[in-house]
Amino acid sequence: MSLAHIRIVLVDTLEPGNIGSAARALKTMGLIRLVLVRPTRFPHANALKMAVSAADVLENSLVFAQLADAVAGCHAVYGVSARQRSIPLPVSTPRELAPRALGLARNAEIAFVFGGEEAGLNNEDLGLCSSLVQIPSDPACRSLNLAAAVQLIAYELRLASLGTILTPTLALPAPVESFERLLASFDDALAAAGYYNNKNHALALEKLRRILQRAELSVDDVKMLLGAVGRLARRE
Amino acid sequence: MSLAHIRIVLVDTLEPGNIGSAARALKTMGLIRLVLVRPTRFPHANALKMAVSAADVLENSLVFAQLADAVAGCHAVYGVSARQRSIPLPVSTPRELAPRALGLARNAEIAFVFGGEEAGLNNEDLGLCSSLVQIPSDPACRSLNLAAAVQLIAYELRLASLGTILTPTLALPAPVESFERLLASFDDALAAAGYYNNKNHALALEKLRRILQRAELSVDDVKMLLGAVGRLARRE
Repeated sequence: MSLAHIRIVLVDTLEPGNIGSAARALKTMGLIRLVLVRPTRFPHANALKMAVSAADVLENSLVFAQLADAVAGCHAVYGVSARQRSIPLPVSTPRELAPRALGLARNAEIAFVFGGEEAGLNNEDLGLCSSLVQIPSDPACRSLNLAAAVQLIAYELRLASLGTILTPTLALPAPVESFERLLASFDDALAAAGYYNNKNHALALEKLRRILQRAELSVDDVKMLLGAVGRLARRE
Repeated sequence: MSLAHIRIVLVDTLEPGNIGSAARALKTMGLIRLVLVRPTRFPHANALKMAVSAADVLENSLVFAQLADAVAGCHAVYGVSARQRSIPLPVSTPRELAPRALGLARNAEIAFVFGGEEAGLNNEDLGLCSSLVQIPSDPACRSLNLAAAVQLIAYELRLASLGTILTPTLALPAPVESFERLLASFDDALAAAGYYNNKNHALALEKLRRILQRAELSVDDVKMLLGAVGRLARRE
C-alpha cells in the first residue's frame, strides 16, 4: 500500500492546533504517518482537540530535532512551499507530482515536508528537498493554513492512489419500454386536458421527452410518475 | 470572472474559528463570497483570528436565517456531504463537478453549501440542493474539518478556472425560486387529485423533487411544465 510509505513531515510548527488539524487532514485521506521536527509545543491539548478522530496519528507520530533524521531512508523528499525560491529546485504542482510520487511510494519511502507557519522552510531544510511542490494559490492571497496545505497534498495523493475516480451511480435507469409508456401516458393526459390546443403537439412532446430523459428515471421513478399522471388524468 | 459568481455557504456553523478558517481557505483560491446561515456565534474574535489575511471576506460575508434566502438567485446549489442519503440524488466528486460548475458560473450565480460540524445538512436544507458533492475521503475516517472541506472544493474550482477547457453547458438551469414554484404547483395538483390519499405525502413529494432536480430544468422547461400542470389541474 503506497500511502503507508508516505511521511508527512511538519517542521518548526508553532501552533499545536495545527499539528492536530494536520493529523486529521492526512488521516481523512488514508495517510497514517506524521513526523514532527522541532514542534514548539507538543504534545499539547490543542493538538489532541483538533485531531478529533485522528488521535492515533498523533500518538504514533515521531519527533526529531533535525529534518535529516526525519527523512532518513526516504527516496524522495518534496518541500511544500507557497513561495518561489531563489534556490534552483524543480517545482511542480501537487496534481502533477502526486501520481509520480505515489509510483515511487510503491517501492520506497518518500516524504512531504511542510515548514513553519510564519517562516516556512529554512535554507538548510530546503537543501534536503529533492524538489518543491507549489500549491497554485491566488497571487493576492498566497499563504494557506498549514493543515489546509497538508489537506490538499494528502487529497492529491489519495486521488492518485484511487486511480480512475469511480462515480457513484444512481439507480439503474428504467428500460426504454417503460419510459415510452410513461411518456405516452403523459401525452394522453395532456391531450385530454386540452394542453396542446394552441401548441405544436410534436414539439411540446419532444420537450417533455428530453426533460424526462435527463432525469434518468429508475423503474421506481417511472412507476411513481405513472401513478401521478394516472391520478391527474382520472380526476373528475 | 466565474469564481466571483460562486457563493460558499456555511450552514449552522458551531465554531467561529471554522468560519475564519473557511474564509481564508476560499480567499487563497481566489474565491471571495462567503455566506453564513444561522452561525452559532458570529462575528467573533476567533473567526477574525483564523481568517488571517481574509478579514475582508468575513466583513463582506452575508448572514441569513434561512438557506433559501442564502441561495436565492442561484441556478445550481451543490450540497457538500460526506454521507450518502437514502433518497437518490446525483452525487459527484469535486474533481468531476468543478469544470461543470465553473462553466455554469460564467453566466450564473451558483452555491456550494456546507452543513454544520456535527450534524451536517438537515433534510430541509438538502431539499434545496440540486446535487451532492462527495469528497472521496477514506472510509475509515470520513469526516473532514469544515474549513478543510471548503479548502478542497475551492482548490478544485480554482484549478478548473486555471484550466483552459470548460465543459460545454446545458441550458442555464432555472433559479431555485422558479423550481420551488413548479414543485409547489405539482404538489397542489396532486393533492387536489387525491394522489396522496394512501401515501406518505412528504416522501412522495421528496421523490418528485429529486426526479425534477435531476432533470436540471431550464427556465423554459419550468415554464412548460407549469403550463402542463396548470392545465391538468384545471381540468373539469
